[in-house]
Amino acid sequence: MIVTVTANAALDVTYTVPTLTVHGSHRVSSVTQRAGGKGINVAAVLAQLGHEVVVAGCAGGPTGEQIRRDLDVRGLSHRLTDLVGDSRRTVNVVDADTGDATIFNEAGPAQPKSTFDALVRDVVRLVQEVRAQVVVLSGSLPTGFPADAYARLVTQVHEVGVPVIVDADGETLALAVAAHPEIIKPNSAELASATGESDPVTGAAALRALGARDVVVSAGADGVLMLPAAGGNLRARLATPLSGNPTGAGDALVAALAAGLAGGRSNEQIVRDAVAWSAAAVLQPAAGQVDPTDVTRLESQVRTEEIV
Amino acid sequence: MIVTVTANAALDVTYTVPTLTVHGSHRVSSVTQRAGGKGINVAAVLAQLGHEVVVAGCAGGPTGEQIRRDLDVRGLSHRLTDLVGDSRRTVNVVDADTGDATIFNEAGPAQPKSTFDALVRDVVRLVQEVRAQVVVLSGSLPTGFPADAYARLVTQVHEVGVPVIVDADGETLALAVAAHPEIIKPNSAELASATGESDPVTGAAALRALGARDVVVSAGADGVLMLPAAGGNLRARLATPLSGNPTGAGDALVAALAAGLAGGRSNEQIVRDAVAWSAAAVLQPAAGQVDPTDVTRLESQVRTEEIV
Repeated sequence: MIVTVTANAALDVTYTVPTLTVHGSHRVSSVTQRAGGKGINVAAVLAQLGHEVVVAGCAGGPTGEQIRRDLDVRGLSHRLTDLVGDSRRTVNVVDADTGDATIFNEAGPAQPKSTFDALVRDVVRLVQEVRAQVVVLSGSLPTGFPADAYARLVTQVHEVGVPVIVDADGETLALAVAAHPEIIKPNSAELASATGESDPVTGAAALRALGARDVVVSAGADGVLMLPAAGGNLRARLATPLSGNPTGAGDALVAALAAGLAGGRSNEQIVRDAVAWSAAAVLQPAAGQVDPTDVTRLESQVRTEEIV
Repeated sequence: MIVTVTANAALDVTYTVPTLTVHGSHRVSSVTQRAGGKGINVAAVLAQLGHEVVVAGCAGGPTGEQIRRDLDVRGLSHRLTDLVGDSRRTVNVVDADTGDATIFNEAGPAQPKSTFDALVRDVVRLVQEVRAQVVVLSGSLPTGFPADAYARLVTQVHEVGVPVIVDADGETLALAVAAHPEIIKPNSAELASATGESDPVTGAAALRALGARDVVVSAGADGVLMLPAAGGNLRARLATPLSGNPTGAGDALVAALAAGLAGGRSNEQIVRDAVAWSAAAVLQPAAGQVDPTDVTRLESQVRTEEIV
């Protein structure tokens, strides 16, 4: 069983309009609403590929109810902690002609300290109750959460003996590594921004000096780098890169890491899955989706190599 | 007591962003949410100027709950009929620098015939229960409502002996006049579009041939034309036109008509109020707002004249 934590879950709303005109008035021709946030996307990919998963995190108010209801409809188990106020929305305005998106991200309501304390308590309780093998912490934090929220969550989850994967950026990532999560998954830009190092191997070493253990770097068309604390760096990529929708590719990659850690797979197997799962996500129109037949087909096209 | 009906009530959401960039990703720096729709704005203006009013119309789902809660917070009594599905939202993206708005209007969920039947039943019951003196029907209809919904509502309200004001446009207006509402309030463009006549007096005569009674035309800086079925056409305007935010000026004008009809005021008094109330709304940043001191001050600046 895998638990994913989406501290700042959102209702992702997509508006389709004929053409977006700045300062114009638009009749929205279609509206779709889905529970969103990186941890929810990770959970959705895991479920589609046959893994048992529970969604944790925070949701509140009527929008929180819509998030919970969408998870129900999609068959994703959830145990969300109430936040104070109404969950945030993202509004994604898509031009019908071109498919191009213009995105508006709400910050969500500021939270008192009690919300974070409740989340920690709920996650630890859930992890014990479902005997989780891995916990995934993904995405941004609600306003008002402590900057080291992920470090504190990692510590609490470690106390009950469960490994943790962190997918975060900026200060949230830099502070999280102090608690030694088993895997962190920055992309190339996030790693460079957190460390000032453009070379991923050097960047990973810099984060390891702060406490990081295994570092997995998503590098777009350059594939996935697995940089374990124990050495044996690997790069995996498709023989021929795919083009498509990169949104959600990182979440599918994290899903593969979680499944691999839960299943005790080798680093080489994990990094192959990571490439295949994220490539399968690129072929889908929305985040949190993969087609299992794409995954099977793409696995055979992954090439791995040792790097130094 | 006045009853306003907002068949297609919305939650009006305003996002402030630094600058709107087409196909960009925006962090929304502030989010405000208010119950919206023309009838709700009419009610809000009436309440601010000391008139008793109840909001009727349709709302449903979690967004409907937010609409109801905002009306509670604003101290506006309401008796909204449940619609099937979740009430629509409008998203208004405002550039922080310029104040310019880009608007996205959801259509809202399509309604079965039973929703309209329930609205008619609820409005008639409410009108009798609160002994309404005037009913106001304002704005668009939910998808799936009969095109002659306003005509049917007018007929039912007339059966219990209460006069009706209709503020609508297009086919909704053209069909509504067949039921002889006491006042219709098109703006110049709506009147021209409904009748093909650019002269308001000729246009009003064309609508009267279809069943209209008194016609009040809002003509922006040209003021307000009162074109009664019994004759005695009046024009009223400010000695010096104001500049500001025209959104909601029409709703404040309708509020003045409703208050005038309820209070048995003369046409000259009503048209003076209509100008002052709508001018006071122009001075406010959002629809459904007036400052009573502005109204008092502006009343003295209204000039009326007879027209033929």
